[in-house]
Amino acid sequence: MNQLEQIRAQQTRVLLIESDPTTRDMLQQWLTEDSALVLSAGNGQHGIALLTSFQPDVVVCDMRLPDRLGLEVLEIAQRVCPDSRVIMTSAVSDTVMVVQSLRLGAADYLFKPFKQPVMLLHAVRRAASDARLMLENRRYREMLEEKNRELNESLRVLREDQEAGRAVQLKIMPPPQKSYGAIDINFRIKPSLYLSGDFVDHFTISKNQVGFYLADVSGHGASSAFVTILLKTMTNRLRKRYEDVSRRVLLPAEILERANEEMLSMGLGKHLSVFCGLIDFEAGQLVYSSAAHYPPPRLFMANHVHVLEDHGLPVGLFQNPGYQNRTVPLAGHFELWACSDGALEVLDGASLALKEQKLVEIMEQANHNVDNFLSLLGITEQASVPDDIAVLLVSGQC
Amino acid sequence: MNQLEQIRAQQTRVLLIESDPTTRDMLQQWLTEDSALVLSAGNGQHGIALLTSFQPDVVVCDMRLPDRLGLEVLEIAQRVCPDSRVIMTSAVSDTVMVVQSLRLGAADYLFKPFKQPVMLLHAVRRAASDARLMLENRRYREMLEEKNRELNESLRVLREDQEAGRAVQLKIMPPPQKSYGAIDINFRIKPSLYLSGDFVDHFTISKNQVGFYLADVSGHGASSAFVTILLKTMTNRLRKRYEDVSRRVLLPAEILERANEEMLSMGLGKHLSVFCGLIDFEAGQLVYSSAAHYPPPRLFMANHVHVLEDHGLPVGLFQNPGYQNRTVPLAGHFELWACSDGALEVLDGASLALKEQKLVEIMEQANHNVDNFLSLLGITEQASVPDDIAVLLVSGQC
Repeated sequence: MNQLEQIRAQQTRVLLIESDPTTRDMLQQWLTEDSALVLSAGNGQHGIALLTSFQPDVVVCDMRLPDRLGLEVLEIAQRVCPDSRVIMTSAVSDTVMVVQSLRLGAADYLFKPFKQPVMLLHAVRRAASDARLMLENRRYREMLEEKNRELNESLRVLREDQEAGRAVQLKIMPPPQKSYGAIDINFRIKPSLYLSGDFVDHFTISKNQVGFYLADVSGHGASSAFVTILLKTMTNRLRKRYEDVSRRVLLPAEILERANEEMLSMGLGKHLSVFCGLIDFEAGQLVYSSAAHYPPPRLFMANHVHVLEDHGLPVGLFQNPGYQNRTVPLAGHFELWACSDGALEVLDGASLALKEQKLVEIMEQANHNVDNFLSLLGITEQASVPDDIAVLLVSGQC
Repeated sequence: MNQLEQIRAQQTRVLLIESDPTTRDMLQQWLTEDSALVLSAGNGQHGIALLTSFQPDVVVCDMRLPDRLGLEVLEIAQRVCPDSRVIMTSAVSDTVMVVQSLRLGAADYLFKPFKQPVMLLHAVRRAASDARLMLENRRYREMLEEKNRELNESLRVLREDQEAGRAVQLKIMPPPQKSYGAIDINFRIKPSLYLSGDFVDHFTISKNQVGFYLADVSGHGASSAFVTILLKTMTNRLRKRYEDVSRRVLLPAEILERANEEMLSMGLGKHLSVFCGLIDFEAGQLVYSSAAHYPPPRLFMANHVHVLEDHGLPVGLFQNPGYQNRTVPLAGHFELWACSDGALEVLDGASLALKEQKLVEIMEQANHNVDNFLSLLGITEQASVPDDIAVLLVSGQC
């Protein structure tokens, strides 16, 4: 809005429809002296013509015009200038006419002759203030609608971007369930945004060996998802190299050492916790190493629950963290449950220890099913969660 | 809203304030038969007490109450039930009273005695419809405001996520300007969203050699930014390995072959164009290889413009693309300009050839400065661009 437009917007615009020239001139003078911008018409036809072009804030219209009824003008004004307010004037005191004006939505009704400007100016100022309020209300609503459209559009663009990113992230994840001989691997990831900083991978290491890990990158969303890409390329490469050399075994602690090196050299300012495991189903053993993974995974076997603890440092923070390989013999049916700490955040509980206990109960109740696990946690498809949640179940027979 | 609430919401709620018991009972019966939900009061005090608890759509109020003026009740009703409409009734035809009601915002004015229900019912229905409209308007505005808050919040979360991603992406990029002995490297990237699929890297290969590349991943945003992380880890690794072996030279075509292998094995469904170069300032030569990079970079040297063409295939689409190394001898001062095809999108021009010509003119006019290049393209800090734009300037003396 330029300066002129601003002044015009502040000045009350009044349309005066009055057939008597003396009255018209007098009213016009009063209103102009009261700093209104006034246009006047001597009959209904001319007045109606000015309505659309002038868009007055206030119409002051006589009940008796030479060519029309004032009530007709009132009705038309309400339709073509819905933001304006209409004041009716009349020389006769006729209750029926007043009531009709009221029904048609007039703002005021003034009796002539006017001796002094005070009544008219008061009525016009009040009507102008009402008109301005109506206009402001409408503009505010339009502004809200426009803002809504803009926000929706920005959100659509960002969401589409995140969804495209999510599609790429899903492509690099292995299938959510797969059997490796006698070993079944199942996992689910529930991201808190579209992109996840939780990541699971599993793969064949040799004829008798299957490897897997569950990683939880600090933070969530795009920046953490970047790290999952990095992890995946690294493990892809390691596996490839070990396939070539074929003799050596790729052990969990070694994978963690490599990941730590890579993270430090990239300088992304991110770190992660990882639980990395290997099951040798010929040797009948689980080898694992943990980089600050919490809560510690549970191994259910022969009515006993083993806590897979290991106090390794997080990946990406320290030089030479010295990861260890731990070995657990496997016999008969076993179930290994691991999940990221996001699962603890959705549980009620007075302390972390109590929450962890609840989590282990849920693992037992889940009946060998990762979807049951999530639903026992209260996680639905639609639910939003404060942090990414990953759950991994490795089960089998040794 | 439950079923009862819905029925209540549909039924017009009328508050009747009338001191004459016969009239009150008659009006209540008419309105109830017209399916309104009616409460009645015999005086102003009781009527006012019911206003807040009952929240009527319509108030029918007599002008003359035993304890108050009807106009007082009208004024209070407008204040405590702003969404309701008030109909005044009166046994006397008094113009002043009607005008006062009108000024105070009454919806209608009816004269008693009522012979038939028609006038009253018509007035109440009209007022109820107005009241409902006012209520709907208010609810609509509140809904818009609430929606705005929600959208702003969602947008804030997604934007913060993208900004965090952008911060990580910037961390893995080299400094935007750096000198390697007699060679200066400058680049700028203008992402179309927060995250970019355009990526530039430069690094020392050996004492006399500097390497660089400009990559443009298909698409833009998070999904494309993932690929830039992958590229960076790959080149980091390659450089590291060649540092160890130290004798062999890391040539551009070899970098492209590795990137191609890695992209194919990851199966991200993304591909990219890359211009990769190496300057040996002892041998005085540029070696480059291009994987479908367009527009071809320009080498300005001794008043001559060399077009650095090479018809290599995009990275990530084909097995064994067979990238070639091209060699150009360098002598005296040179300037190598490369940019991604996003730059062509912001240029006017009837054909790609004409746009490309314009781009080369801009390179010449930019006066050895990548910021000048962007500003000649019309790119400001605030401007949004349809595709990521990267520009790289390698200049020096051989």
